[in-house]
Amino acid sequence: MSDNLLIQPAPRTIDWDAGAIVVIDQTLLPGQLRQIRIGDLETLLDAIDRLAIRGAPALGIAGALGVALSARLAERGGRPNSVVREDARRLREVRPTAVNLSWGVDRALGHLSGGADRVLKEALAMRDESIGECHAIGERGADFLAAAKPGKLRMLTHCNAGALACVEWGTALGVIRAGIQRGIIGHVLATETRPLLQGSRLTAWELDQMRVDHAVIVDSVAPWLISQGEVDAVVVGADRIAANGDVANKVGTYSLAAAAASAGIPFIVAAPESTIDPQTPDGANIVVERRPAHEILKFDGFSLAPEGTLAMNFAFDVTPAKMISAIVTDRRLIRPARGERAVDVISLAKAGPF
Amino acid sequence: MSDNLLIQPAPRTIDWDAGAIVVIDQTLLPGQLRQIRIGDLETLLDAIDRLAIRGAPALGIAGALGVALSARLAERGGRPNSVVREDARRLREVRPTAVNLSWGVDRALGHLSGGADRVLKEALAMRDESIGECHAIGERGADFLAAAKPGKLRMLTHCNAGALACVEWGTALGVIRAGIQRGIIGHVLATETRPLLQGSRLTAWELDQMRVDHAVIVDSVAPWLISQGEVDAVVVGADRIAANGDVANKVGTYSLAAAAASAGIPFIVAAPESTIDPQTPDGANIVVERRPAHEILKFDGFSLAPEGTLAMNFAFDVTPAKMISAIVTDRRLIRPARGERAVDVISLAKAGPF
Repeated sequence: MSDNLLIQPAPRTIDWDAGAIVVIDQTLLPGQLRQIRIGDLETLLDAIDRLAIRGAPALGIAGALGVALSARLAERGGRPNSVVREDARRLREVRPTAVNLSWGVDRALGHLSGGADRVLKEALAMRDESIGECHAIGERGADFLAAAKPGKLRMLTHCNAGALACVEWGTALGVIRAGIQRGIIGHVLATETRPLLQGSRLTAWELDQMRVDHAVIVDSVAPWLISQGEVDAVVVGADRIAANGDVANKVGTYSLAAAAASAGIPFIVAAPESTIDPQTPDGANIVVERRPAHEILKFDGFSLAPEGTLAMNFAFDVTPAKMISAIVTDRRLIRPARGERAVDVISLAKAGPF
Repeated sequence: MSDNLLIQPAPRTIDWDAGAIVVIDQTLLPGQLRQIRIGDLETLLDAIDRLAIRGAPALGIAGALGVALSARLAERGGRPNSVVREDARRLREVRPTAVNLSWGVDRALGHLSGGADRVLKEALAMRDESIGECHAIGERGADFLAAAKPGKLRMLTHCNAGALACVEWGTALGVIRAGIQRGIIGHVLATETRPLLQGSRLTAWELDQMRVDHAVIVDSVAPWLISQGEVDAVVVGADRIAANGDVANKVGTYSLAAAAASAGIPFIVAAPESTIDPQTPDGANIVVERRPAHEILKFDGFSLAPEGTLAMNFAFDVTPAKMISAIVTDRRLIRPARGERAVDVISLAKAGPF
């Protein structure tokens, strides 16, 4: 078993310390690992807005700790709870499509009547639950990998579903971390993940911290490498999982799943149970967010295309359940390619009319 | 029928004018359209090396005109033909993997005994042949598209197989130009084409010149858009076509062909007959060139990944014949998905032992 210190970056992505939220500023990576202390709501809103904090689980905790921070400041300043509720509204709206952010805000806010300390206690419990979920996902994913193929596995991952998207450890990269601890990972290919390059900027940085052999590849080469037998398994995160097991995730995920299905290698989605959305029956009901064209057409202010060029910038795509070997959550293993659903129709029916 | 002036950029990508080679400096696109006059071999070698001239057909003509330039300067300076042969050797070696460059150099050099004017005559004949080939490819490709589906087609292309890769008109973009003239093109999606972004830098520029509706997309979204029924046909160029119809082309081509085959839409390869290599029986015999890691890891000097990160930078990939609906050359239409070969085994057998 490897030394945990070697494969876990020292600071948590987001944490609470002596009255402040402390986060790794991801806009400075991979060049610089720097933590910022956030002691007021304006700084937090700005950090979320400029993507210094990103990733669904991390945003959930940021929302909860943000409400705790606001409640603490209000209590000390003798201001009413309505101020905290207004802060909560602003927090939700800084990234309105991030479901986890609202979830974190609302759960913490539900304890506001208990006072600032009670809100903080809830937020810290959520932080600890999130860590526990990642470790459970990692172990269950590593179990699946070990059963799928003996020997050292050549893994491929997409975007960043790592410690930097969570409090620590990660979801897809949590599976790889657990696999490294068990000695079953040979090397990892990381897609660069255009347009925002989370693969080369963030995942390569985490893989370097893990001291595992790895290389960055352009997104478009991955399906061909899979077809050539160069990859043993693909593991990715998820933005939303529909009841039937269809998965919305970072754009490019579909192309990897299709190639993995053709090649007959495992395609694994690693995500906390809370990513499963029982209200969404299937992928056809997921509205795919389009982001600004400049993310594709500009780099660091430099124009990559003629002025006036249009770009279609889909933030994610939808992978059909039939292409997904396994969805690994903190609680269970679901096999969508074998017809297993993420949400059981019968248990939903029990809960009320469907 | 559209006005040719609107859909053909005014200057040729490469041409001969009053004793000099004139080329569009592609390193300045899309920001600036500037031609450079090349009156000596050192400037030509530098222009090829820094990719001011690129694309298989254009490099062939650059090689031929380079020999013509060298022969002319040697004749005027009273220097022997051995100087020209040495220049030819240097030209071939500036991009040793570019087969067309050597081909252009050698064909022009074969006329050196006839004097500098004879070499130039040959190079200009090659230029004119290359133009004729592109137009023939375009018309044959448009015939295929018109027969494949009625109405306005939603096209997708990859990398730049346009006028900027040829003398003028283009191969894959030649098919789109001919289709625009016939009024059968609705819009064109151009993949940005990482790592060197020939799609956003060059193809978007050409599509803008053609005044056809178009948008740039990241490479990894294309297979998903194809699966969603958003594309009617895909057309790409080729770096090399094996005897059995397997095609080596810019990395990412395989992922598009696989998606097109799954969706049942035409996948068309447009290339001059000279791209077919009878010496290569199939794709398994094509050595895929790997280019420097910094093309993926750096942008304009800025590091996209931690220092020391490795990258696997495959310049192209290989698409199996079974996924290719049509190879359109200047002379014929080949249907690899129907089992048609690019090189007839019987005619090869006639030429000698296989």
